[in-house]
Amino acid sequence: MPPRTFKTRVFIATSLDGYIARENHDITWLTSPPKNTHHLPPTSPRRVDTIEQHMSRVDCMIMGRRTYDFCISLPEWPYAKKRTFVLSRSMAPGAYKAKDIEVEVVGSLDEAKDVFERERLGCVYVDGGEVVTEFLRRGWVDEMVVTTAPVLLGNGIRLFGGLEEDVRFTLVGVDVIEEGMVSVHYTAVNAKDR
Amino acid sequence: MPPRTFKTRVFIATSLDGYIARENHDITWLTSPPKNTHHLPPTSPRRVDTIEQHMSRVDCMIMGRRTYDFCISLPEWPYAKKRTFVLSRSMAPGAYKAKDIEVEVVGSLDEAKDVFERERLGCVYVDGGEVVTEFLRRGWVDEMVVTTAPVLLGNGIRLFGGLEEDVRFTLVGVDVIEEGMVSVHYTAVNAKDR
Repeated sequence: MPPRTFKTRVFIATSLDGYIARENHDITWLTSPPKNTHHLPPTSPRRVDTIEQHMSRVDCMIMGRRTYDFCISLPEWPYAKKRTFVLSRSMAPGAYKAKDIEVEVVGSLDEAKDVFERERLGCVYVDGGEVVTEFLRRGWVDEMVVTTAPVLLGNGIRLFGGLEEDVRFTLVGVDVIEEGMVSVHYTAVNAKDR
Repeated sequence: MPPRTFKTRVFIATSLDGYIARENHDITWLTSPPKNTHHLPPTSPRRVDTIEQHMSRVDCMIMGRRTYDFCISLPEWPYAKKRTFVLSRSMAPGAYKAKDIEVEVVGSLDEAKDVFERERLGCVYVDGGEVVTEFLRRGWVDEMVVTTAPVLLGNGIRLFGGLEEDVRFTLVGVDVIEEGMVSVHYTAVNAKDR
């Protein structure tokens, strides 16, 4: 297989027990945490991107159908102006528009790879637990910023799913951000195909 | 119920996807990680205990039967000289000795609480995924140091189990230790009964 011509980044927040959302998709535990003035204050950045810096580094994003359904249900699409691919076996491939938001539907990772390479997209933001896991299984995750919120939810939608082999990372940055959240920046040691 | 007279600390290491061991109990991914000279170097400590400092702060420890079976299978008992309780419904209650290691078996958390209070044990180290979860369910975890290794295992024995309600923490310290591991120190916001 020819080497991948694109690079990928994961930028995701999780509870301390590894959930990206409650089972009902609620993320208010992340977006509106209880006020707590006792948290360690934010540190000066140590090479961890903010969401704005992260978005400026990527050429497009890819998400699963569930993440798409959640994002389109919000009052405002959270990723303005960034070209978006939705990985879905049930939606028809090609352009898809809802609420003035246009996305491109791809049916498989191989199809996504073809599009990224044909369109010379250099850096892809991979979002959502299932899609992140599919990319990890292929060794297609190059960088990852994981932000952990200081709460155990007990149940919910998991960030990481089953893998057939270990995925090892190099720690490249750690940052304390607001509300007791810790952001950690990793690069993959055993990313493949590039 | 009268307030708890003891305090608890969890001091545990986990993979990035929340496993404390592989399904076969292997922890070499933690104890013998592949050499990687690119990790962010250790930071000066920011209020996160080392294992030695942690052990000096606790009066005893409590672990589940599976953690006990694992520890007793090691060439050397890893917690020398620290009074140890094993929470087990299948072992006979009371003193239990194997390989010159004496532990005290308790059949329930209520029984453990009675012993801790009767014996005026001020600070208890709670170890092992299932026992930590039982303490969390009761709101009986006061402090937690979680060290995350830079690897996804995909499967294994999980650190945190299901909970009926959120457990919220205050972030009090973050430290980068050796081999790309990040240690985070939390105190529980909604610990109960004390």
